[in-house]
Amino acid sequence: MHILLTNDDGYQAAGIQTLYRTLRAKTTHKISIVAPDSQRSATGHSITLFHPLFFSEYQLDGEEKGYAVSGTPSDCVKLAVQGELVPKPDLVVSGINQGSNLGTDVFYSGTVSAAMEGVILGIPALAVSVASYEFVNFEPSAEYLAESLDHIVQGHQTGLLNINFPGNPRESWSGIKVTRLGRAVYDNVFERRVNPRGRVYYWQCGNLSKDLDEDTDLRAIQENYISITPMHSDLTDFKRIENYKKTFQKHTV
Amino acid sequence: MHILLTNDDGYQAAGIQTLYRTLRAKTTHKISIVAPDSQRSATGHSITLFHPLFFSEYQLDGEEKGYAVSGTPSDCVKLAVQGELVPKPDLVVSGINQGSNLGTDVFYSGTVSAAMEGVILGIPALAVSVASYEFVNFEPSAEYLAESLDHIVQGHQTGLLNINFPGNPRESWSGIKVTRLGRAVYDNVFERRVNPRGRVYYWQCGNLSKDLDEDTDLRAIQENYISITPMHSDLTDFKRIENYKKTFQKHTV
Repeated sequence: MHILLTNDDGYQAAGIQTLYRTLRAKTTHKISIVAPDSQRSATGHSITLFHPLFFSEYQLDGEEKGYAVSGTPSDCVKLAVQGELVPKPDLVVSGINQGSNLGTDVFYSGTVSAAMEGVILGIPALAVSVASYEFVNFEPSAEYLAESLDHIVQGHQTGLLNINFPGNPRESWSGIKVTRLGRAVYDNVFERRVNPRGRVYYWQCGNLSKDLDEDTDLRAIQENYISITPMHSDLTDFKRIENYKKTFQKHTV
Repeated sequence: MHILLTNDDGYQAAGIQTLYRTLRAKTTHKISIVAPDSQRSATGHSITLFHPLFFSEYQLDGEEKGYAVSGTPSDCVKLAVQGELVPKPDLVVSGINQGSNLGTDVFYSGTVSAAMEGVILGIPALAVSVASYEFVNFEPSAEYLAESLDHIVQGHQTGLLNINFPGNPRESWSGIKVTRLGRAVYDNVFERRVNPRGRVYYWQCGNLSKDLDEDTDLRAIQENYISITPMHSDLTDFKRIENYKKTFQKHTV
């Protein structure tokens, strides 16, 4: 299997580098890296249309190469596959991200969007995150992923699996839960300040108020489970299509 | 009804300004504008976490205000609602965008993402686009929207309607179709060039190869219909959840 690694924390980030080393050490897969040249968190699914994309090339172990690209996570996957920077991957793995990607927050996530770009291009994908900004050890999640990859990928021929690991050592993990995306709600999202010249500005921040519903990803992580959410790429609301067909049936232009 | 207008082409763009003037002239709704201070196309659902958000304030007709914000389309909706820049809107309308937002391209779209942000915050939303970069007359689509708004909003209590107008005069429109999102596939996406110093770079571009399936938005626009696609905000693939529960049933950490 040829795996394309990408992320949104940047090519040199500990999460992707630990994952690369661990997959090289514990599996026989071929691994390329195409990742942003700097931190691109919260870039969502943005792509670069009005600037060209430059990149630096690195020789990895074996025949594979790494590329640090002057673009977003989604640019990286598009450039890797459609620009044929690397051989066509069988799997896109995005991460390991520092910080959770749960619930409706997946829309803002560069990590999840890069994986979704793989899906749009017809390649199954994993988005992988550690649900903590303080726990900076990516070895437990990287090792778990390397050990379980064949099991996870078996039967995962299409679509995206959004995997969040608890932000603490492996011995305190509770187990695995297959979850749905919860609704991430934030309190106190904008903090108003005044600059020294008297101009008002806002900082976006806030505390996540957890969705406690039993089967959500937010709940699973709160209870120290690995959360695995199957995601698809179609935002069409099929349930509402028939209703709207009636609404617009007699409506003319 | 209080309507929040936003877009990704920027506060001064013809699309949003024409829509504002037309809704003011042809409806009695209150209308605020919170839009990016410059062009933010293809920003997807990115948000600004590492810089503060500044804005310029404008007095609109009536009591309402307009804000041009140093952020992305999604920032604008978040700041408007969660930062309480304007009274809580009953409807978010994002657009009118210059250029279509169809199929899987909705993931890259700042226009659609701003509307989706409304949905995440519990407010029904419309994303509105004219499917042409050459046809720069927004009056036909703005007028149609103003005339039909009550009909469109009736029964639209939740979720997003993604509306694309044909990029030509109203007399050539074929009618209205309620559609699903098609799969947007591009040919020749990355054009490789070498700069005067010998460094390779890529431009992202390409021609859309249309999804001709009968019920897609791409097909509807190709045939000069107004395309209306109901969208939701949950990317969970519920069909696959049960399968994965079996896969991971006996899997331990």
